[in-house]
Amino acid sequence: RPQFNYQKVILFPGDGIGPEISKAVIDIFDAAKVPIEWEFHEIHKKRVTDQGDLITEETLKQVKALKYALKGPFETPIGKGYRSINVTLRKRLQLFANVRPCKSIKGVMTPYPGVDVVTIRENTEGEYSGLEHEVVPGVVENLKIVSYNACQNIAQYAFEYARANNRKQVVACHKAGVMKQGDGLFLKVCDDVAKNYPEIEFSEEQIDTMAFKLANDPTKIDVMVMPNLYGDIVSDLCAGLIGGLGLTASGNIGKDCEVYEAVHGTAPDIAGKNLANPTALLLSGIMMLKAMRLNDYANRIENATYSVLEEGKFLTGDLGGKSTTSDYTKAIIDKL
Amino acid sequence: RPQFNYQKVILFPGDGIGPEISKAVIDIFDAAKVPIEWEFHEIHKKRVTDQGDLITEETLKQVKALKYALKGPFETPIGKGYRSINVTLRKRLQLFANVRPCKSIKGVMTPYPGVDVVTIRENTEGEYSGLEHEVVPGVVENLKIVSYNACQNIAQYAFEYARANNRKQVVACHKAGVMKQGDGLFLKVCDDVAKNYPEIEFSEEQIDTMAFKLANDPTKIDVMVMPNLYGDIVSDLCAGLIGGLGLTASGNIGKDCEVYEAVHGTAPDIAGKNLANPTALLLSGIMMLKAMRLNDYANRIENATYSVLEEGKFLTGDLGGKSTTSDYTKAIIDKL
Ligand SMILES: CC(C)[C@H](C(=O)O)[C@@H](O)C(=O)O
Ligand SMILES: CC(C)[C@H](C(=O)O)[C@@H](O)C(=O)O
Repeated sequence: RPQFNYQKVILFPGDGIGPEISKAVIDIFDAAKVPIEWEFHEIHKKRVTDQGDLITEETLKQVKALKYALKGPFETPIGKGYRSINVTLRKRLQLFANVRPCKSIKGVMTPYPGVDVVTIRENTEGEYSGLEHEVVPGVVENLKIVSYNACQNIAQYAFEYARANNRKQVVACHKAGVMKQGDGLFLKVCDDVAKNYPEIEFSEEQIDTMAFKLANDPTKIDVMVMPNLYGDIVSDLCAGLIGGLGLTASGNIGKDCEVYEAVHGTAPDIAGKNLANPTALLLSGIMMLKAMRLNDYANRIENATYSVLEEGKFLTGDLGGKSTTSDYTKAIIDKL
Repeated sequence: RPQFNYQKVILFPGDGIGPEISKAVIDIFDAAKVPIEWEFHEIHKKRVTDQGDLITEETLKQVKALKYALKGPFETPIGKGYRSINVTLRKRLQLFANVRPCKSIKGVMTPYPGVDVVTIRENTEGEYSGLEHEVVPGVVENLKIVSYNACQNIAQYAFEYARANNRKQVVACHKAGVMKQGDGLFLKVCDDVAKNYPEIEFSEEQIDTMAFKLANDPTKIDVMVMPNLYGDIVSDLCAGLIGGLGLTASGNIGKDCEVYEAVHGTAPDIAGKNLANPTALLLSGIMMLKAMRLNDYANRIENATYSVLEEGKFLTGDLGGKSTTSDYTKAIIDKL
């Protein structure tokens, strides 16, 4: 295979169904002649750094060097002294934004057709600071941190995303009525940044009201930007609206590098049985291609994928079909 | 009207549509010969205590003395030095539990029929501590407080509620994977308390996964118990699932007293026009009657209400009907 002009990107295949769904993505990208070359890296089962991380310094450096990585699902070992691999990657690589587009897929029955929302989540601070202690016996204090810089980064990213993707509205979600200083700062920064994007309609909403609207009628919502914890909850809520975590792409964006990932689990019950649905990892890979400005390849694969899903002839078990991972993969390749 | 044997309860009619929907409840309760007598109290537009509260010490004392109160919607004046009336009531009266049952109503079209969930929310601490400060310029710290006592109170209440209401399952929602000490404490206490209720199936779920499940298929979920902020978000999410805040009851429970309330807004655009839907306040009043062990009255009014909604002949505008508040009220009275 010609290496010339091929860009290297990192692949973490993952545990459980990870290797099979990774293979599906590799095969589809190969068939579409996407000019990238995969460099395989591992996430370990035992700590390999002093901080209890499951990923080596060399791999972290390499992600920064190559700029783009795609990641399958991983099991986090249970027990003290481990840090979730997601949290590690976000912190160590300063992946300050998590982006989760959720779009209804024709052919996948859900209560709400016509959903097309994007959650943009601050990915580094808030309740995720990891700062907690027991102040007196039976009373724990957890520090929620909100910094001007992180708010600025995420707000700017949200509006740039909206502009680049032709989205019309950005809504900042917060609870500034209760956390007047912390969420108040987030809201104020969003409001200030919005002034630089006059073509995009900006509004704000309390996070509880937004949860209400998403459950009641999500079709009117466009791009949402919000602090870490709210984003964790809302992005999963949105995945629920369009039929599951098996169908949603996710990107973690930093200034130096970007890690795209399937956010579903490792599904150990069906691992190795050629039954897994590779769509979430595939859509994440497509998001990555768009970020790499390989849009033609991205769009071609995306159209093929949606058209296979819409036809409904080759669906995996999670979508009520009877196809294997390889049947589904082949069906997509045939449409390219 | 005979005062003998009548129990006094407090009514805060509220702003906007508050007085009309309160009148509807009063009329329906009167028609059903509910043995209570209303004592009207006000929530003020200007601060009446040193803490910036909008409610007098006398009223707070009277709520404790009479034990039960029903509250319409209120506008919170905007500006510094005010405290949300909800937060005031919860803190000052130590209303440690917020209970929000959400049940699909036949006749009200929603994406999910068959929802019957109850959110039980810790109502006094977590991110609602009100403790925040700017540690260095541009960095705000907000204290999320989790105490053994508050966890114990809410966990016990949740299981007692489940037992009293014949519910089969309680699920504790948390983010203990990230907030290991704070949410970890909450989870541990729930787990311990669960052991005293062997007839109730106990489980736990990360709050993001729970949001996913609620959006994806809420029909399998029963009673949920969770910390303050998650409960704020999830209870509104659940209201969205069954057709709106105009249809959901809410109770704030303390050891000394209980305040039931309609959690929707004051709807100033339709205020005074005899167009408002009194269902949320009515269902909250029915919850109050059950707490007062006036179950026969409660059930009779509840059945009448659901049957009017199901028939769909007398619906208010928010439900796609053309009836006035008084038509709807009369229809319920006619079914008693
Ligand atoms: C694994 C966990 C720490 C993570 C999070 O809460 O951020 C996950 O839920 C996610 O959304 O990526
Ligand atoms: C008004 C506000 C402080 C309140 C809350 O967040 O608790 C409201 O949203 C609620 O759910 O009752």
